Amino acid sequence: MEKVSVFGAGSWGTALSYVLAQNGHDLLLWTHRAEQAEEINNHTNNRYLKNIQLPETLKATADLKQTVGHSDVYVLAVPTKAIREVCANIKEHLNKKALFVHVSKGIEPDSLKRISEMIREEIPEQWIEDVVVLSGPSHAEEVVLEHPTTVTAACENTKSAERIQDLFMNNYFRVYTNTDVIGVEIGGALKNIIALAVGITDGLGYGDNAKAALMTRGLAEIARLGVKMGATPLTFSGLSGVGDLIVTCTSVHSRNWRAGNMLGKGKSIDEVLEEMGMVVEGIRTTKAAYQLSQKHDVPMPITAALYAVLFEDISTDEAVERLMGRMKKNEMEDLINLL
Amino acid sequence: MEKVSVFGAGSWGTALSYVLAQNGHDLLLWTHRAEQAEEINNHTNNRYLKNIQLPETLKATADLKQTVGHSDVYVLAVPTKAIREVCANIKEHLNKKALFVHVSKGIEPDSLKRISEMIREEIPEQWIEDVVVLSGPSHAEEVVLEHPTTVTAACENTKSAERIQDLFMNNYFRVYTNTDVIGVEIGGALKNIIALAVGITDGLGYGDNAKAALMTRGLAEIARLGVKMGATPLTFSGLSGVGDLIVTCTSVHSRNWRAGNMLGKGKSIDEVLEEMGMVVEGIRTTKAAYQLSQKHDVPMPITAALYAVLFEDISTDEAVERLMGRMKKNEMEDLINLL
Repeated sequence: MEKVSVFGAGSWGTALSYVLAQNGHDLLLWTHRAEQAEEINNHTNNRYLKNIQLPETLKATADLKQTVGHSDVYVLAVPTKAIREVCANIKEHLNKKALFVHVSKGIEPDSLKRISEMIREEIPEQWIEDVVVLSGPSHAEEVVLEHPTTVTAACENTKSAERIQDLFMNNYFRVYTNTDVIGVEIGGALKNIIALAVGITDGLGYGDNAKAALMTRGLAEIARLGVKMGATPLTFSGLSGVGDLIVTCTSVHSRNWRAGNMLGKGKSIDEVLEEMGMVVEGIRTTKAAYQLSQKHDVPMPITAALYAVLFEDISTDEAVERLMGRMKKNEMEDLINLL
Repeated sequence: MEKVSVFGAGSWGTALSYVLAQNGHDLLLWTHRAEQAEEINNHTNNRYLKNIQLPETLKATADLKQTVGHSDVYVLAVPTKAIREVCANIKEHLNKKALFVHVSKGIEPDSLKRISEMIREEIPEQWIEDVVVLSGPSHAEEVVLEHPTTVTAACENTKSAERIQDLFMNNYFRVYTNTDVIGVEIGGALKNIIALAVGITDGLGYGDNAKAALMTRGLAEIARLGVKMGATPLTFSGLSGVGDLIVTCTSVHSRNWRAGNMLGKGKSIDEVLEEMGMVVEGIRTTKAAYQLSQKHDVPMPITAALYAVLFEDISTDEAVERLMGRMKKNEMEDLINLL
């Protein structure tokens, strides 16, 4: 039994708290809204996980200082956009080393920082035991139904990844370890771009053949960028690569897929954003990935086509045409660059 | 414009003939049923491609000798089970070298031969220009709707792969070349096993997380076997690997998925086979793959669990439990064996 602090009580933060509480850990879940903390202490979080009874040992609070003081393992389950702010607030109360775990997926536009890099910029080195990323194909709604789920815990320091593995592992939630933080973070973030693109082709009325081609070629271009940034190519064949890509691109629950679908059906980006009424991470990530592909001089035709649709106002039909025309003739020429 | 002969007028043979005829080639499609040839010459093949108008230049015949004499490019679009018989019949009429292209997916149980090996055993070497395999994520029904589709043409001899690429390539049907025949054949055949397994977990009521995990780990074990047999690891990250796996596992049209789904819902294999009323290639392939994993001493836990369900009568629940229990702790330990 360990003490653990989870920050962020959206669906994923709550589902991870569910697993930790079930595993017998002494867990405190922080949310910035007092009434949500109260609801969770009454064993539901209906806005995020409908009709789920939470374990009685799952305790929540809106007191950030208390949550920081509660343990030396901090699971950050907030949107990419909020990472810096939450870290800055945590820092105010830090007086010991802590193991930081993040479960967010994104790249910061312009700075082009990965999430573990953002954490290391906001938290002084002296308070960081390690930063672990937990990622993989995992709808929160299925985890709390205790359906079999597998994820990867990645850290350069295997001991820290194994500590997180031990915290979360049980008979329905399997955790693998990996040392390739860059690969796991890049795979998790950039798969949202492919989900947007697949949503567009589905919206245009193309079928499964086009979807599979986009996912395959999309994974190849993500891997190409990741390897240039220092990732291990095989990570993209793992749970946080192809596994997460599959879940995100084939589920109609995916926000990014839904946004792409509306674009494919002819709506403008402004209409899509208004209708969704929430952040579509893939749009920010497309910009960041496009910038990364230019910075590292890596050809990413799918990302470039999507960027042109989102930020240069070309039509979705023209984007598909560009893609089909551009494809190389030799499959291995393209893939071989990974090694 | 080239002359081409296609053998087998099921949905895929007809769809490929559609592409070839549209590309302006002088094509003859063989079927063993005279009335089907007549229907195709009247521009439909409704049993296999409902409501599709075939090009007027798509000609069919039930005369095997005429079809063999028509060209020196033979596209074999028959079930794996029929490959040897059709080759033996073609051989009777051969008097010149021909380029053989096959589009079937399977491994022969017991002999453990790939399809190109079966062709080379049945056709005397003096009549074989080369054997090319054409494979990838491609529902026939979508190809004849001219939806974007991408496939791989593989041959040790790049010139022959490029000849096939030139024959089929157009603005909705993109053909890549590859030299890794073993990898393309193994990926195409063994993905049917994973589709069966995914059908089972879907039938048991598990969700997308389990599906993505099975597909990811399944691809890893297929690649592990393929590499041991001489394939290039990267082929499994391409269209004939992960691409075809995605289409087969996420489409409810897949026969293998449907068979697995019924098993997961509690039916016996005999009931499933009776209800399907047709060949479920994945069942034969599971046996072959299990035999291959033993022959090459490659651990394939998903294949082994499925083999136990199909041939050793363990319950599907127990198979899932075995799988979840068996998973290794370090993701890379497992994947690293590929290189």
